[in-house]
Amino acid sequence: MNRRMVFYTIGKLAQITSVLLLLPLLVSIIYKEQNAVIAFLITAAVSLGLGFLATLLFKPSNSLIFAKEGFAIVALSWLYLSFIGSLPFLLSGEIKSVIDAVFETISGFTTTGASIIPDVTAITSKGILFWRSFTHWIGGMGVLVFVIAILPSVSDRSIHILRAEVPGPVVGKLVPKITETAKILYLIYIVLTTLEILLLSLGDMSLYESIVHSFGTAGTGGFGIKADSIASYSAYSQWVITAFMLIFSINFNLFYLLLLRNFKQTLKSEELWTLIGIVVVAFTLICINTFNGFANFEETARNSAFTVASIVSTTGYATTDFNLWPVFSKSIILCLMFIGGCAGSTAGGFKITRVMLIFKCLKREFKKLLHPRTVATVRFEKSPVEESVVQGTCVYLAVYIVCLFAIFLLISFEPFGIETNFSAAVSCFNNVGPGLAEVGPAGSYAAYTGFSKIILSFAMLMGRLEIFPVLLFFSPSIWRKK
Amino acid sequence: MNRRMVFYTIGKLAQITSVLLLLPLLVSIIYKEQNAVIAFLITAAVSLGLGFLATLLFKPSNSLIFAKEGFAIVALSWLYLSFIGSLPFLLSGEIKSVIDAVFETISGFTTTGASIIPDVTAITSKGILFWRSFTHWIGGMGVLVFVIAILPSVSDRSIHILRAEVPGPVVGKLVPKITETAKILYLIYIVLTTLEILLLSLGDMSLYESIVHSFGTAGTGGFGIKADSIASYSAYSQWVITAFMLIFSINFNLFYLLLLRNFKQTLKSEELWTLIGIVVVAFTLICINTFNGFANFEETARNSAFTVASIVSTTGYATTDFNLWPVFSKSIILCLMFIGGCAGSTAGGFKITRVMLIFKCLKREFKKLLHPRTVATVRFEKSPVEESVVQGTCVYLAVYIVCLFAIFLLISFEPFGIETNFSAAVSCFNNVGPGLAEVGPAGSYAAYTGFSKIILSFAMLMGRLEIFPVLLFFSPSIWRKK
Repeated sequence: MNRRMVFYTIGKLAQITSVLLLLPLLVSIIYKEQNAVIAFLITAAVSLGLGFLATLLFKPSNSLIFAKEGFAIVALSWLYLSFIGSLPFLLSGEIKSVIDAVFETISGFTTTGASIIPDVTAITSKGILFWRSFTHWIGGMGVLVFVIAILPSVSDRSIHILRAEVPGPVVGKLVPKITETAKILYLIYIVLTTLEILLLSLGDMSLYESIVHSFGTAGTGGFGIKADSIASYSAYSQWVITAFMLIFSINFNLFYLLLLRNFKQTLKSEELWTLIGIVVVAFTLICINTFNGFANFEETARNSAFTVASIVSTTGYATTDFNLWPVFSKSIILCLMFIGGCAGSTAGGFKITRVMLIFKCLKREFKKLLHPRTVATVRFEKSPVEESVVQGTCVYLAVYIVCLFAIFLLISFEPFGIETNFSAAVSCFNNVGPGLAEVGPAGSYAAYTGFSKIILSFAMLMGRLEIFPVLLFFSPSIWRKK
Repeated sequence: MNRRMVFYTIGKLAQITSVLLLLPLLVSIIYKEQNAVIAFLITAAVSLGLGFLATLLFKPSNSLIFAKEGFAIVALSWLYLSFIGSLPFLLSGEIKSVIDAVFETISGFTTTGASIIPDVTAITSKGILFWRSFTHWIGGMGVLVFVIAILPSVSDRSIHILRAEVPGPVVGKLVPKITETAKILYLIYIVLTTLEILLLSLGDMSLYESIVHSFGTAGTGGFGIKADSIASYSAYSQWVITAFMLIFSINFNLFYLLLLRNFKQTLKSEELWTLIGIVVVAFTLICINTFNGFANFEETARNSAFTVASIVSTTGYATTDFNLWPVFSKSIILCLMFIGGCAGSTAGGFKITRVMLIFKCLKREFKKLLHPRTVATVRFEKSPVEESVVQGTCVYLAVYIVCLFAIFLLISFEPFGIETNFSAAVSCFNNVGPGLAEVGPAGSYAAYTGFSKIILSFAMLMGRLEIFPVLLFFSPSIWRKK
């Protein structure tokens, strides 16, 4: 493996991280939060120092990278972020335990939104809360995509990094040049986030609140600043967030097509219509099922729509404690947690593309059983899908299920019930955030032991990076010199 | 499709069913149970009549069958059994509701052992209880395997029936001739069952009890005659049943190898060692976890071993209410429910062979990710596995997961919690029997609505027949004439 190139890239990432830290630092300066200012300054300095050290020590003789290096860079980068990102929480004294701070940071970067803070209002520093939500925004589109977008000298080999970091079975380059692709993705991301900030600040949210919640929505994360999440904001704010949660669970390629004014192809997207179908069906069923629990139709519709959008986009914001809903609605929510959003969006989960490929594959299997000599290719968005992608999706399902069971078993040494543990595993692994029962929207992960928190942290990383980079990280063969 | 041949075979099956009904009839005669005697006589007469009618009306011009016909024969046969088998319960008046009687019958034939009878001691007829357990025995090895074994004029084309009925990804013919294979399988089955009857009758069970429980064990079903299942029998009986539950979850091919005195190859079986490994690990973990709840080591070991054997073999007998165990042990039990026994045994579940193939496939995937140009075949029991079988296993996992979620959602219109519904779906679909919470070993499925009972009945059939025959049954194309 080209180790020098791996560490060199991490070095660059560390430098960029220190620049990103200037934003929460600015917030802390504005709100005159001395502890937080010092915490951000130290963290930024450490990251800058480590970054320079790494780029000096590991100047690579060649910039050649392959799949192996891609996985290693992504896994190491995210590990680095998990630790450096937790420093502001620890140094400012807002979170005392290292495990808790790392859990919260990983939950942030992986856009999970699961929290170990029982009452978020206990965190007084606005800068720290800003950083907490900002990690969602950074992790949403992928921090390495950002690195690729802004570094001048990136070779097209970086596709291996993109592939390992961007979720979904196929990574489509929007344009031939990889840096351009990354730039376009971030441009769309920034424009949409800004639009949400504007719309939210027109309602009952302050500019600060609008920014924090837009970060949480854009990354499909779910960290807020109130104990009841979004429940106490106006219906207007709730509808805006509902819309943007759905927008951010759409494949970004479609926004690019819109930019090119290719409306026809945008509307033809099978994946988009499947997402719409899932949302409409889940919304209707939950509306009917929960109607008795709300005052009127608007309230039922708003809370159902918000919850469906929040879960399908794996954001995890809440306007109501869906834990108190009838079992049928809770069961739908549990199923939605698995599905997640579209590939190439900031949403987590198994991804709608994969669910569709699995169903297409099953349809073909039935045909084959009845007509053994048929040769049929799976088609997606009207084009034939390579057989390796179809089989890869089935294999991904297998590794996904195996990991989920492992996580579930490993966190079951707790005084909680099976519903809590199972939904905690599902929620963290799919980067949703809240689960059911004890870890529902009104609860938190605070009561879990350190061991379980570490396991769940790994679960979140595995979910965000789609398992392989995290598992391969532990394989000795990836670290072997050529 | 060769419809005549399909209905002709069902006709033969109906005739054989009427003969099988003579055994519970005999029991009812011995115990002088008038209602049950009449019920069995009528059912046998109906089945015989229908059978003769079908063989007369549908005398096939050719006996050619393909995969299609295999699926249709298996699906129709099992539907037929589900209805004809429920008649004795209804006619004797022991079960009043048609849905309940069909549920109980399907639970019997599919060797699930899930019951809608809240207190089994309310059923007074020994003949009816005998029939209830006898359905386990008939369904365990497969009723069509029995038909193939005893019909004189079966062509080797019947492999398609065998393939559709016998669980597991690959059906190995023991000997070149298909009738001989079926005969050997049933011979082993009868010998082992007889051995268990003998061993049990040496303990505190009467001959009747020994037979009934041996049927339940042999088919890995789990219907008993006491409200507390096996708990009130002696430790000796419990250990005997533990041993036989494990024996019946071993691939029958291995017993055939033993018969041929090929001890070396028997001991080399990867699948056997994986089963042993799973049992030992689960047993050890549960022993440690539940040690505080029992009086002494023997009691801990006995109850842990019994429960692990009962769940891994998907039998469902109980000596203790594992629902009261710590969450970690319950979580292990939930995972074991998914795995099930070996392929080619009477056990249900996803099957150890498939779990092994999935893990081997994942291992290869990791290799491929790191070394994209590697070509590696998956090996099982030292031989290379055809690529179609490996991919088929992954596809089977996909359809299995999709069906499980569908079942789970469809039964969630109930006043039960998610733990109850999820474990009910898992338990029925994997033909285990008891689940957790409300449907735990001390509970029953009585409180579910008719709709959910029908869904769970389908789940049991899908689990036993490995999904495809049941789903294909609803496909119009299977019924189309050539």
